[in-house]
Amino acid sequence: MKNTLEEFKDYLHRMRQYDHVLTLLHWDLSTLAPEKGVEAHMNAINYFSTEQFRLSTAEEYGKMLRELSAPELFDSLDEAMQLTVKRGRRDYERFKRIPEEFYSSYTEVKARSERAWEKAKRASDFSVFAPHLEKVISMTKDFVRYMEPEADPYEVLLDMYEEGMDSKVIDRVFGELKEGLLPLLKKIGESPRPDLSALEGKYDIAAQKKVQSMLLEYIGFDKDAGAMAESEHPFTTELCIGDVRVTNHYKEEDPISAIFSAIHEGGHAIFGQGIDSVYQDTAVERVDMMGLHESQSRFYENILGRRRSFWVPIYRKLGELLPKVQEIPLDTFVRAINAVQPSMIRTEADEVTYCLHIILRYEMEKEIFRGDVSVDQLPGLWNDKMEELLGIRPRNDGEGILQDMHWSDGSFGYFPSYLLGSMYDGMFLEALEKEKGSVDAILEAGRIGGDHSLAA
Amino acid sequence: MKNTLEEFKDYLHRMRQYDHVLTLLHWDLSTLAPEKGVEAHMNAINYFSTEQFRLSTAEEYGKMLRELSAPELFDSLDEAMQLTVKRGRRDYERFKRIPEEFYSSYTEVKARSERAWEKAKRASDFSVFAPHLEKVISMTKDFVRYMEPEADPYEVLLDMYEEGMDSKVIDRVFGELKEGLLPLLKKIGESPRPDLSALEGKYDIAAQKKVQSMLLEYIGFDKDAGAMAESEHPFTTELCIGDVRVTNHYKEEDPISAIFSAIHEGGHAIFGQGIDSVYQDTAVERVDMMGLHESQSRFYENILGRRRSFWVPIYRKLGELLPKVQEIPLDTFVRAINAVQPSMIRTEADEVTYCLHIILRYEMEKEIFRGDVSVDQLPGLWNDKMEELLGIRPRNDGEGILQDMHWSDGSFGYFPSYLLGSMYDGMFLEALEKEKGSVDAILEAGRIGGDHSLAA
Repeated sequence: MKNTLEEFKDYLHRMRQYDHVLTLLHWDLSTLAPEKGVEAHMNAINYFSTEQFRLSTAEEYGKMLRELSAPELFDSLDEAMQLTVKRGRRDYERFKRIPEEFYSSYTEVKARSERAWEKAKRASDFSVFAPHLEKVISMTKDFVRYMEPEADPYEVLLDMYEEGMDSKVIDRVFGELKEGLLPLLKKIGESPRPDLSALEGKYDIAAQKKVQSMLLEYIGFDKDAGAMAESEHPFTTELCIGDVRVTNHYKEEDPISAIFSAIHEGGHAIFGQGIDSVYQDTAVERVDMMGLHESQSRFYENILGRRRSFWVPIYRKLGELLPKVQEIPLDTFVRAINAVQPSMIRTEADEVTYCLHIILRYEMEKEIFRGDVSVDQLPGLWNDKMEELLGIRPRNDGEGILQDMHWSDGSFGYFPSYLLGSMYDGMFLEALEKEKGSVDAILEAGRIGGDHSLAA
Repeated sequence: MKNTLEEFKDYLHRMRQYDHVLTLLHWDLSTLAPEKGVEAHMNAINYFSTEQFRLSTAEEYGKMLRELSAPELFDSLDEAMQLTVKRGRRDYERFKRIPEEFYSSYTEVKARSERAWEKAKRASDFSVFAPHLEKVISMTKDFVRYMEPEADPYEVLLDMYEEGMDSKVIDRVFGELKEGLLPLLKKIGESPRPDLSALEGKYDIAAQKKVQSMLLEYIGFDKDAGAMAESEHPFTTELCIGDVRVTNHYKEEDPISAIFSAIHEGGHAIFGQGIDSVYQDTAVERVDMMGLHESQSRFYENILGRRRSFWVPIYRKLGELLPKVQEIPLDTFVRAINAVQPSMIRTEADEVTYCLHIILRYEMEKEIFRGDVSVDQLPGLWNDKMEELLGIRPRNDGEGILQDMHWSDGSFGYFPSYLLGSMYDGMFLEALEKEKGSVDAILEAGRIGGDHSLAA
């Protein structure tokens, strides 16, 4: 007869299958599923989410969790299993408080809202998205209140994406940053602009895809443990340790956007691929600290990718793939990718203004969860904050409130992770250089991916 | 309270969700899943196949089928539902005779075998595939014997792919064909060869993808109800009526291969997309007559795609996408795509030799199911038959027995469908011209896709 731990592991493995197909369904919906197939995909997402919900709230699962939590058994578990039991208990209790019908309906509303957002973004038409966003906001509030009836909903969300983090800390560190950055940005604005005209031109999309492939390989992405696709917004999906996928979004007149998205998502993916497979099916495999996750992607993107030394070993290769680059001296290219200039799109922002893009979203999320702003007022509020923080105003909602997918699927509380990650990065860089010496020397020698992985 | 028919429809809808994710898992495995993610995909396929098997053999399902088969209820059903009940009963009874453990294991063996075949084909190494093929053959025999203990297994397989068809009819019509084709091929072989050198060269893969996209649109493939991807062997996948996907396989030195695969798979897809959505979840949606299905793909490929008139409206466009084509006069191109020449690869064969490729496979399948040929002997047998029928001998198994994916997943009995389909096509052409006039006139006027669809 199997003991409780063995039964628990079987149960985790069973629950994992639902995770697997739901992740795949979402991946497919964002990368390939055609318009007329959405309904069938939604049906499947709805059906399997509900089945998964039933497994996560089943009495037999609760019983195993209680048994494994008893000190004599709990103390005998390894660390990963202890964490899995702890998280499992917390989530089991939270989920038991959610009515199944609400959960199904919330899942469906989010999936539909994601699709509506894609359409709205392409058409730059907020009205297409507004009714969906309104539902998602109100149901996310309910969702969190079901799980933690006593807590402040936004605090629960922040903790879900970065365990242990709260708005008190974020208010403080973002406040300090804002205070330092606004005068810095003003000073930069008064200095002469770098000349970016050298990069102007058209860049073949097929060639940009080859650049992405080259960059991923260069930084150490394992192609036997991942895949690439296109989507409206770049993202990373972890099906399992051996299958971490990245997407990108290409623009013919701007190769830099896809280049830095490739490096950013590549950073996420390398982190996912680097998890030891002994942790499969445990809570360790799914990192609940998105600040930490973003610190990895943004480390590759900014701390490494914006350095001259990062490009030294591959600049000729880049020129072979994008012939126009052959006309641009490396120093001009490096100045261009480091130019600081207020702009509309977060994912294309420089290191200075990026922080302000995140602060804007954080302030808006607090308004949404604690203030009484209506959905109709959100685009205006967004634009006002852009003017206040960055001194520019979006001409339309496509380059304003519609640019990010996060709110469409209820991921409120996620945005601060990016900036927290960037702040961790500063500390990581210091620690790394102390331990391994100059990052520039390492990069110039081409010791970044594979055996030379900086993570190794 | 719901009546039996409503409950039955709910149950069909539930079973359909498993179909949906299993189809998606297989699609992903053949198009995108990386090597190190295969195991996780296999786990999911295995888990959900078993769940699906349980649903298809559940007592409550059997009870509904029996109730709906009672004359007073059955007669009140519409035709589609009658067929669904009839098929459902047949399959329920067949599946009830299969042990669950066998079914799970068969599913897994087939999925692993598909992957092994891909590897073996790429390496042109039959030994990688042989142990898998051996298992698939022996388990397919068991599978069929469980379902129909009294019948000849190969007849059951033939009937599964083309309901009502048997080897007696196929022996006769294929025999007649062979008798007519062998002397014809000999005569063609003695005539002067058309000069194909004009097409020689390298064709950019990205450009070939654009050609595929253009062709699919031209023949009436609805892009809002489908998608395109790459795979080792071109195929069509129907997730649902609104989501029918095609793959292709590109060769830099041969654009014709991908062009005719695009038209062929496009024909399948248009047939799938054309099914009325009122038949969703019923047996009508999944056509169990692959000969009929292949008649559609091969009609587009051969009856239409090999005609000069097919290319008249799009030949300039083709030249824009593949500049080399601009140097080739249309008549030279049309002669090239109609050249008859024994060659190794079925999917690239001309209309005359194609038939012999199928007859070869049919004869081999009869040997496998009725003779006592061992797996080790199969490559030699293949090569001998190639010499006998086509007068050429493969230099390696990659261009021999490993070229097709069908046997890797147990689809024995499928191959005859292609040739049956081609024979139906001759009759369809006659009927079509009687009803709508000259096909050449229709094609030259560009009236093929969309509103002008020949199917409309």
